Amino acid sequence: MRDLEKMFKPDSVGVIGASNTPDKVGHIVVSNLIEDGYKGEIYPINPKGGEILGLKTYTDVTQCPTVPDLVVVVVPSKAVNPSVKQCGELGVKNVVVITAGFKEIGGEGVKLEEELVRLANEYDISLIGPNSLGITDSHTPLNGSFSQMMPPKGNIAFLSQSGAMMVAIIDWSITAGIGFSKVISIGNKAGVTELECIQYLADDPETAVVICYLESISQDHNFIETMRKVSSKKPVIILKSGSSQAGAAAASSHTGALAGSDVAFDTAFKQSGIFRVQTMAELFDIGLAFSKCPLPTGRNLAIITNAGGGGVVSVDAMERNGLNLVSFDEETTAKLKAAVPEEGSVKNPIDVLGDAPVSRYKETLEIVLSSDDVDSLVIMVCPTASADPDGIANAILEGNEEFNKPIIVVNMGGSSFDNANELLRKNSIPTYVFPETAVKVVDFLERFNAVQERTYDNPIQEINDVNKDKVNEIFNKVKADGRDTLLGSEAYAVAKEYGIEAAPIILSKTPEEAANVAEEMGFPVVLKIASDKILHKSDIGGVQVGISTRDEAENSFNEIMANANKAHPDITPDGIEVQKMMDSGIEVLVGMIRDEQFGPMIAFGMGGVYVNLIEDASFKLASGLTSDEIDEQINNTKVVELLKGFRGEAPGDMDSVRNAIKRVARLTLDFPEISELDINPIFVYENGSSALDIKIKL
Amino acid sequence: MRDLEKMFKPDSVGVIGASNTPDKVGHIVVSNLIEDGYKGEIYPINPKGGEILGLKTYTDVTQCPTVPDLVVVVVPSKAVNPSVKQCGELGVKNVVVITAGFKEIGGEGVKLEEELVRLANEYDISLIGPNSLGITDSHTPLNGSFSQMMPPKGNIAFLSQSGAMMVAIIDWSITAGIGFSKVISIGNKAGVTELECIQYLADDPETAVVICYLESISQDHNFIETMRKVSSKKPVIILKSGSSQAGAAAASSHTGALAGSDVAFDTAFKQSGIFRVQTMAELFDIGLAFSKCPLPTGRNLAIITNAGGGGVVSVDAMERNGLNLVSFDEETTAKLKAAVPEEGSVKNPIDVLGDAPVSRYKETLEIVLSSDDVDSLVIMVCPTASADPDGIANAILEGNEEFNKPIIVVNMGGSSFDNANELLRKNSIPTYVFPETAVKVVDFLERFNAVQERTYDNPIQEINDVNKDKVNEIFNKVKADGRDTLLGSEAYAVAKEYGIEAAPIILSKTPEEAANVAEEMGFPVVLKIASDKILHKSDIGGVQVGISTRDEAENSFNEIMANANKAHPDITPDGIEVQKMMDSGIEVLVGMIRDEQFGPMIAFGMGGVYVNLIEDASFKLASGLTSDEIDEQINNTKVVELLKGFRGEAPGDMDSVRNAIKRVARLTLDFPEISELDINPIFVYENGSSALDIKIKL
Repeated sequence: MRDLEKMFKPDSVGVIGASNTPDKVGHIVVSNLIEDGYKGEIYPINPKGGEILGLKTYTDVTQCPTVPDLVVVVVPSKAVNPSVKQCGELGVKNVVVITAGFKEIGGEGVKLEEELVRLANEYDISLIGPNSLGITDSHTPLNGSFSQMMPPKGNIAFLSQSGAMMVAIIDWSITAGIGFSKVISIGNKAGVTELECIQYLADDPETAVVICYLESISQDHNFIETMRKVSSKKPVIILKSGSSQAGAAAASSHTGALAGSDVAFDTAFKQSGIFRVQTMAELFDIGLAFSKCPLPTGRNLAIITNAGGGGVVSVDAMERNGLNLVSFDEETTAKLKAAVPEEGSVKNPIDVLGDAPVSRYKETLEIVLSSDDVDSLVIMVCPTASADPDGIANAILEGNEEFNKPIIVVNMGGSSFDNANELLRKNSIPTYVFPETAVKVVDFLERFNAVQERTYDNPIQEINDVNKDKVNEIFNKVKADGRDTLLGSEAYAVAKEYGIEAAPIILSKTPEEAANVAEEMGFPVVLKIASDKILHKSDIGGVQVGISTRDEAENSFNEIMANANKAHPDITPDGIEVQKMMDSGIEVLVGMIRDEQFGPMIAFGMGGVYVNLIEDASFKLASGLTSDEIDEQINNTKVVELLKGFRGEAPGDMDSVRNAIKRVARLTLDFPEISELDINPIFVYENGSSALDIKIKL
Repeated sequence: MRDLEKMFKPDSVGVIGASNTPDKVGHIVVSNLIEDGYKGEIYPINPKGGEILGLKTYTDVTQCPTVPDLVVVVVPSKAVNPSVKQCGELGVKNVVVITAGFKEIGGEGVKLEEELVRLANEYDISLIGPNSLGITDSHTPLNGSFSQMMPPKGNIAFLSQSGAMMVAIIDWSITAGIGFSKVISIGNKAGVTELECIQYLADDPETAVVICYLESISQDHNFIETMRKVSSKKPVIILKSGSSQAGAAAASSHTGALAGSDVAFDTAFKQSGIFRVQTMAELFDIGLAFSKCPLPTGRNLAIITNAGGGGVVSVDAMERNGLNLVSFDEETTAKLKAAVPEEGSVKNPIDVLGDAPVSRYKETLEIVLSSDDVDSLVIMVCPTASADPDGIANAILEGNEEFNKPIIVVNMGGSSFDNANELLRKNSIPTYVFPETAVKVVDFLERFNAVQERTYDNPIQEINDVNKDKVNEIFNKVKADGRDTLLGSEAYAVAKEYGIEAAPIILSKTPEEAANVAEEMGFPVVLKIASDKILHKSDIGGVQVGISTRDEAENSFNEIMANANKAHPDITPDGIEVQKMMDSGIEVLVGMIRDEQFGPMIAFGMGGVYVNLIEDASFKLASGLTSDEIDEQINNTKVVELLKGFRGEAPGDMDSVRNAIKRVARLTLDFPEISELDINPIFVYENGSSALDIKIKL
């Protein structure tokens, strides 16, 4: 893991490309360092020497009195690499390149960036950028950025892949009163990646929550494992824009069509314990809550409001977010009755009425917070004639001192609440304008408990009865034949070697062999022409079902061959495949689509002919898949109701389903050459299961 | 329709309960009238007489120099009805009752409110309230409310069922710079309903859009028809909180279980052309857009941004909202290339870069707006060092003068944009902080086109081949038997009289009759014990399928009777039902659940055993159902893919499906005594269809 301590807490900062011209970036960076209170040494560096903003200026980085802990580079793109090389030779370990004109412009820029990466690696430099707006740390304090505004001090770390959006957010946060520990514009991510930053921030005592705006995720084969470690320490919230193309590219398979274009990111984030949000507003609303509140111990939420309507709207939002509208016990109810006038409501949501003075709010919130049934509290204030926003804010702060429960305030209005909002936010109470936001953040706060409570086993790697060599042999044969799709009999053989329960399919070359095979596996059987080149096998008379005797099998073999030859005289079939006919069961699908970034992604859902119509599928990445996640995957479908025994029908064998998922995960992790896999349907019985149709593409 | 003109534009206003005590409501109302610039006559009314705030005070309403056009009542609840009676006798036509303590407190309050309603009706008074916060009209100007803030002038009409929330919104709107034409606190809706207000506002020239916070919808049998007229004139946006219980109550039927608790409102609003939103923020964001923008002529959206990230986030939001990221033609692209530096992007979203001066924004937006391919434009500004928010705002306003297209501005930041936001909003350009909001409002703007373009036919009432009398006879017999559920044969008879294609079911009383019936309808048939008291007919041997001859039919009759007698010796079956066995087809469901408020709601979706697992259903209210809506209902399901012919399978007869929906709608409109109806499955063939199982409950 990268140590970025001196990046954010340097004793000295060099600015290569410092300038005396006020509008230039090289001037603004030096000025920001000074103006925003950086206490260490500042070394402006410019070949002309002299003074910049009253500071002695050095002609190059080697002339600085000490080796700077951090160097910010703002020279034109062509001059960046020589400067970084000089830094490297001098022993500088932290460099931020603000200069743009690298990979993002293509062509020459790509080459420049490759050289920059090489230099950073050669000299072991932690490099942020290029095309970064810089970094800030409000605790150091350090404004090592081109942004003319310093974000307010706080405990939210914000990473942005867009520089301009970072500026926008700093501007907005000043007005909104949201404070940041560090703000990092990660630019092109040529050196330090966002994942490395997040790992560093996970251990940063000044950071309570990490929020990110990202357009791409850096390649990391241990993404899930790495991020699980982070999310066990701190909440990470990501707005990931743009879409993965993995699903779209492979839409030829059932699984691919089910996956859509953005499922891999959703799945990866979920399995990592990262919260993914859809909008900028959510990113900051939720970040604010985590930065202020303790975690609730459960999903019981109480509401205090001076407007009945606000209570109703909150209850709707609770229903959407799956929070419990806690019912108060007798004792609490009795106390509330003494505190709230009769025309109000002592049932949750508590209506303290529009004329509620501060004392009524205070009394009510203390009663509610002292109830063990209440895990968190939303307090809503409408600016009625009697409402005293500042007084209520102070009452809330007193209550907050006493009880360690999340309190979220909805100050529903405009500037009448400016003071109260500032007071509350400064003292660890998040405030919002609308009740729906408050309810939503409580949901996120509580969900972080589950993230932290997760345990990680590794059932996929514990499987030890697979025969990798045999499967390798099969794949090699397929490749040698110049095919990319396995025959049914080959796919069955692969499944067998990996312990996936399946209906036997054996390839036969002669009528007699077909009869022998059929006899051995047991009648009745299906005979099917074997060829990856004949697509619509039924249409040309290439399939015969319900074969019950040796004679039928032999005749059927000859008829199918004749039909195939007639329809496709140019194709030589591989033979005839004999498959045992199975009793029908609950039809499920297990499939795999390989994501470029995250590897095999396993689908599970309702199987059968209408699978792409019903669209009942849930996804998990194979890498790091846990037993809990497999159960979650199964439970997150409609077909699970059939497996549980729908309306008195026989249930399905869940262990057999789990087994199929695990073994498909293992198979596709073991063999990166498998590009797609579809098993549809698997018949699930009360005991065991049987895969009917297995498609494997290399 | 109620004429509320003098309610909002009175020549004189009386305040019954006016007071000299500054904190009293009766003082605040008089003070608000004066302070907020009301130009007509103000008559404070108080038995003590004297002067209030310098105005002559009258001892009762009859003493006023003229009959007031509007009277605001703030006396204690017990004194309200006598005051209103006096108003009525005097000929006052508009009364707002601010006083609370009526229906909302139950008991005595309910009686008081009943008397109040009676008085309003007797004297033909338009009564708003009681338990209202009052009304405001910023154009009159009239602050006839208890709110100490007057909403800014504008063209949004806001109706609120929660008084405190109305105050909150006025407070917030002042800060947010959102202007209102009228703000109405509708209170208990004892007299004037929200629907009457909305109808009045539809013709109000000062109102461009109506937004409502509602907790209930007033009973109106012509709700859809009434609201369709309104939405043909003006956009209506409703945040309806709380849930209907219709679905939950009737969850015993398939249709009921599919409906959930809030579908009726969704359906009613949709069929009325009303936009329903989920959050307070949406209500105002979308209201603001309608109050400022012309409607776009299509769904092609262009984006101009000085931050690449903002563009990416917008594109994600466009995908979610189904808007088109328009591609520019060669001419436009050429012009853009001349205006935007090479490092930027001339493809949509257009990236004018972080250093974009006002001139680049201006040139770009004019090029984009002049392209015929562009229907609306979102302009995003991040506060980079080079960004000049006020300059850009002025450039946008110039562009807006020239082109009649919606322009939405995202000023992404805080107080740096205060001036620009004010300038833009004052001049018909809505502004938002985040790009996702801007994209969402464009979606709503465009969707209003479809609302206005809708045509309304009445295919349900055009059906003229139904036999109401025969159905009445059947229902009367069922009622006479003391049953609430029809036998299969009775339900079939009802279906037949209403032209619903169904597999014949005839009740037989003797073995011979069964054989005759079977012969007449054609073998094979199913025989089934007929009794509403025997629930699990198959389990007791009460069903026999595949009966192919007269002999089999007679034997089967006797066996079933014997089985039933053995299992339920206490029950006398109604006989044996003979049903023709039908070829299977595409399985669909048509059902009806009756909503208390909106009448019969028709469900259509995938049918079969797993209907409640698959949950593929869409709903329409029968009342006013149009041909377009029926098609929309069918198209809004997954099973429509089967009806279109899924993957080479035979398609289903769409006309036959439409017919089933229409005739179920007609049947359930004609017979309010039908409480639930489920037809599942209907087999749909290439030609025609056949209802297999029809359940009708009275």
